[in-house]
Amino acid sequence: MSFLQVTYHIDGAPEEAAARAEAVLLEQTVETPRDVALRHEFVRAHMMGSIREMAPLEDGRGLRVTLSLPTVTASVDAAQFLNVLFGNSSMHANVRLENFVLPEQMQGLFSGPKFGLEGLRAATDVQHRPLTATALKPVGLRLEEVAALCRTVAEGGIDLVKDDHYLADHPFCPFEDRVRACLRAVDEAAERTGRRTVYVPNLSGTPDQVRRQLDFAQAQGVGAVMLAPMLLGLPFFYELVHERLEVPVLAHPSFAGSTRIAEATLYGKLLRLYGADAVIFANYGGRFSFPQETCGQIAETLRQPWGPYRPALPVPAGGMQTERATELVTFFGLDVMLLIGGSLLSAGPALRERTREFIESVERAALTLST
Amino acid sequence: MSFLQVTYHIDGAPEEAAARAEAVLLEQTVETPRDVALRHEFVRAHMMGSIREMAPLEDGRGLRVTLSLPTVTASVDAAQFLNVLFGNSSMHANVRLENFVLPEQMQGLFSGPKFGLEGLRAATDVQHRPLTATALKPVGLRLEEVAALCRTVAEGGIDLVKDDHYLADHPFCPFEDRVRACLRAVDEAAERTGRRTVYVPNLSGTPDQVRRQLDFAQAQGVGAVMLAPMLLGLPFFYELVHERLEVPVLAHPSFAGSTRIAEATLYGKLLRLYGADAVIFANYGGRFSFPQETCGQIAETLRQPWGPYRPALPVPAGGMQTERATELVTFFGLDVMLLIGGSLLSAGPALRERTREFIESVERAALTLST
Repeated sequence: MSFLQVTYHIDGAPEEAAARAEAVLLEQTVETPRDVALRHEFVRAHMMGSIREMAPLEDGRGLRVTLSLPTVTASVDAAQFLNVLFGNSSMHANVRLENFVLPEQMQGLFSGPKFGLEGLRAATDVQHRPLTATALKPVGLRLEEVAALCRTVAEGGIDLVKDDHYLADHPFCPFEDRVRACLRAVDEAAERTGRRTVYVPNLSGTPDQVRRQLDFAQAQGVGAVMLAPMLLGLPFFYELVHERLEVPVLAHPSFAGSTRIAEATLYGKLLRLYGADAVIFANYGGRFSFPQETCGQIAETLRQPWGPYRPALPVPAGGMQTERATELVTFFGLDVMLLIGGSLLSAGPALRERTREFIESVERAALTLST
Repeated sequence: MSFLQVTYHIDGAPEEAAARAEAVLLEQTVETPRDVALRHEFVRAHMMGSIREMAPLEDGRGLRVTLSLPTVTASVDAAQFLNVLFGNSSMHANVRLENFVLPEQMQGLFSGPKFGLEGLRAATDVQHRPLTATALKPVGLRLEEVAALCRTVAEGGIDLVKDDHYLADHPFCPFEDRVRACLRAVDEAAERTGRRTVYVPNLSGTPDQVRRQLDFAQAQGVGAVMLAPMLLGLPFFYELVHERLEVPVLAHPSFAGSTRIAEATLYGKLLRLYGADAVIFANYGGRFSFPQETCGQIAETLRQPWGPYRPALPVPAGGMQTERATELVTFFGLDVMLLIGGSLLSAGPALRERTREFIESVERAALTLST
């Protein structure tokens, strides 16, 4: 029999936390009193799971508990997997999902990133340094303003320029017009610079709306797309990746919450497993509060070898400054995308120049690191 | 101009929390430094939003902050609404979404429950007492066992019997076979009792899988369906309700988390807004830790008058005991569905009798309450 191993941190004094571990085991499998479940032979033989390991947490606040949950129930579909991983127990305020180990028998359910880190390097033609990216914002820019901004950063040499995640199909800047205008802008810049920036539209809406946007964007020839998997739903994200995606996809963290799933597991494993080629996360020292160590773990988890799954590209973001390029490259290494929005945009008329300086500082930092 | 009013609780000493309030305002609107946003006339005029109210929290731990966020950006689609409500700020560990007021101008985006509380009363033909429900579990029951269980509780007179949320399209109990077998079981019971229990299958998978399941179940004549909107994605749930649903839908709380969106707002407002006819939540005194007051608020919020939206039915659940029927009816009133799983199932061979006693205790409690 094959098992999915899932590790939770459970708060509480040892006996209390141990009792909760048993409760989580039942909650994530049979969801009935144990004696009810044991009455049925097939359930008893195949569904019960077990507590595999239980050890005190370093901070003394509870237990690290690893459960073996039956693959036979978790592997049925992309929603059921989440259900077994952290369905009802997500409502237990004292339980945090720490990690999981996917058994080989389940690797067929997921194909992971379709393009991954190498696919993004190929799409941008950047091989030996971090990728650079910026965002088109604020929401409320009219079509011509968005296109002008896109052209300017493309002329400055940025590798990717993405829609802000607040750019949806607004009447004042409709999706299809924006995709056309931005592709024209990066083409015009390419004629002058000889290098084509990858424009990345943001997809938003219900599954039908998002599918239409993706089809349109791909038909127009975009080099990548972005969407927020936790907002749109991981099972839908999975379906889109498996059945329709022809270019790399950047995962945006909107609506991802912050406290009940370990960051390295959510951003590093789950999003990669469901098919993100690059994962944007709230970097340390920015507008959000993830510690530096956590950010390092997210990046490592995204890139490390994992079964049949391509490595994905970490994208630390959320209030980064161009001045931090050297520090960030030193910390994250070469396989990273540096996404800098507001700090670039605040350059105003000097935006093209500031963009060029940003790229050059990344190139220098990469050279220093490589030698 | 029209605004969506959103209230957050922000932790911190007064000055610190006030600075965070300004940061949340920028984060949930233009997501750039204020001076960058103000450079653009349309943005300045239509996108900035404002802090409408700010007051110390009763417990002294922070501020209650109400923001006015521009409807023009929030109302574009069912994903963008969540994005503006609690997109990036969900990553701020010190920010909790408390509440929102939907302006009339946005009510056209949502149609809320298609059937609602009254639709569920009509579907079950129960008018003057709480609805009773139970679950088919544990996962791992074979087809014949599920059908037998379904028949027994139907003969006992239960109003609704739903699949456990862990029942997906498993090879050992496939979805379509289960729907057929359970409908046959409730029909057979109806021939003996004269009353037809509503069987509620659980829908799980990617959007395409769930659509196929829904189409099949509706074609077979089920009286209601269940799914987990936070697991499948709220925008997909919205689309399913608006475009395909022909019977009431019960929202299951799996993957809903517990701590960063006020329970009454998540279960009471958001799920109703997106179209749930009945909302299952973790009741006080069960396997989860929601306080009684919170449960009361969820129920009130689901049922209270709200613009054009039908009232939805609260479904307190999660380790309820049949013995608590009187207490629960007294607390929640008549407009409630009592969902009792394990406690009924543990009756074993006495299940039909225990089911009948459960219904009778609800009828007695309702009579006492009405007189």
